[in-house]
Amino acid sequence: MTDSSRPADTAAGPVPAISEAVPGTGGPRSEGTRRAILGAARATFAARGYEQTTIRAVAARAGVDASMVMRYFQSKAGLFTAAVTMDLQAADLRSAPASDRGELLVRHFVDRWEDPRQGDDLIAMLRTAATSETVAGQLQAVLSQQIAGPVAAALGEDRAAERATFIAAQLLGLALCRYILRFEPLASLPAAEVVASVAPSVQRYLT
Amino acid sequence: MTDSSRPADTAAGPVPAISEAVPGTGGPRSEGTRRAILGAARATFAARGYEQTTIRAVAARAGVDASMVMRYFQSKAGLFTAAVTMDLQAADLRSAPASDRGELLVRHFVDRWEDPRQGDDLIAMLRTAATSETVAGQLQAVLSQQIAGPVAAALGEDRAAERATFIAAQLLGLALCRYILRFEPLASLPAAEVVASVAPSVQRYLT
Repeated sequence: MTDSSRPADTAAGPVPAISEAVPGTGGPRSEGTRRAILGAARATFAARGYEQTTIRAVAARAGVDASMVMRYFQSKAGLFTAAVTMDLQAADLRSAPASDRGELLVRHFVDRWEDPRQGDDLIAMLRTAATSETVAGQLQAVLSQQIAGPVAAALGEDRAAERATFIAAQLLGLALCRYILRFEPLASLPAAEVVASVAPSVQRYLT
Repeated sequence: MTDSSRPADTAAGPVPAISEAVPGTGGPRSEGTRRAILGAARATFAARGYEQTTIRAVAARAGVDASMVMRYFQSKAGLFTAAVTMDLQAADLRSAPASDRGELLVRHFVDRWEDPRQGDDLIAMLRTAATSETVAGQLQAVLSQQIAGPVAAALGEDRAAERATFIAAQLLGLALCRYILRFEPLASLPAAEVVASVAPSVQRYLT
């Protein structure tokens, strides 16, 4: 006998990381369609870039109608953000002592940027945000979930949004200079050295 | 009787700030032509954006031949950088006590970004660098002159390039989040508050 008292939404598997920040989260029955669209979107954005990708092309690759993509993700920017961040989890700052949280947060971001499966997509999102106001708005939603959320959870709401915005400036500046502009010597330093250099700045914004 | 022993190159007036980092610096007799081209370039880039601006259009506005623009600036990226940074001076870190140099440097950058005559151009350069490798290279040359140069002059050459690259990451991240992505609350904070918040991070990279 199956446990029919189990809430239906746990049947969907892992809760999408960005479920509250980004459109496109349906109920359990829609999860397969949603992930098929996201997989098609990742492949299409990677092949063509943001500007040259159309909702129609993504829908064709996923084998669904374009109106279905719009129903799930509302806009190309929403689809892009959901595709790029589909497996992104936030850091849990409460898992570390207060003095180590800056380093934990910097390492969390650097690990993702250096990850061959996720890094290129996240850097593409930052690059696109520099020229698209809509994507910039989506990026702010993602960073709110990735920085402001964990900061508020660990430290309380007091000035969490302001702390988070200065932390975002430090972390996005690092990503910009290391991965997009490729300024030397920063672009060639070992990741561990970068984390060690930047962590005290983030720690200061946290305290 | 005039002082004929005075070196000829001082007759050109103020030494261009970017003379070693960026092409386009001619001798004293070419200074008028150079500035006419730069003025035309600023107006054209501002009206059309980087991608839509052509060397031919800048030359026409300046009343010179396109080959003359190429002789002075070598490329569209070189012309863009020279136009955007034509009046940019580096901070003199030696003018402040060691403990105040981080704040001096942050205020120097924030003042320029907030300046209605220069700010939009400098932000346009950062935005363009995110999508053009050539402009990214030019931006690195400008930041070398604006950050690494003053750091080396004040602190000596020891690790100056590495310190400068981390300072650039902090400062460009601030510009990206405040002026391009317009993340709140950072975008709306008073400039003095932003300087006070970021200065200790830059101070740490200096020491």
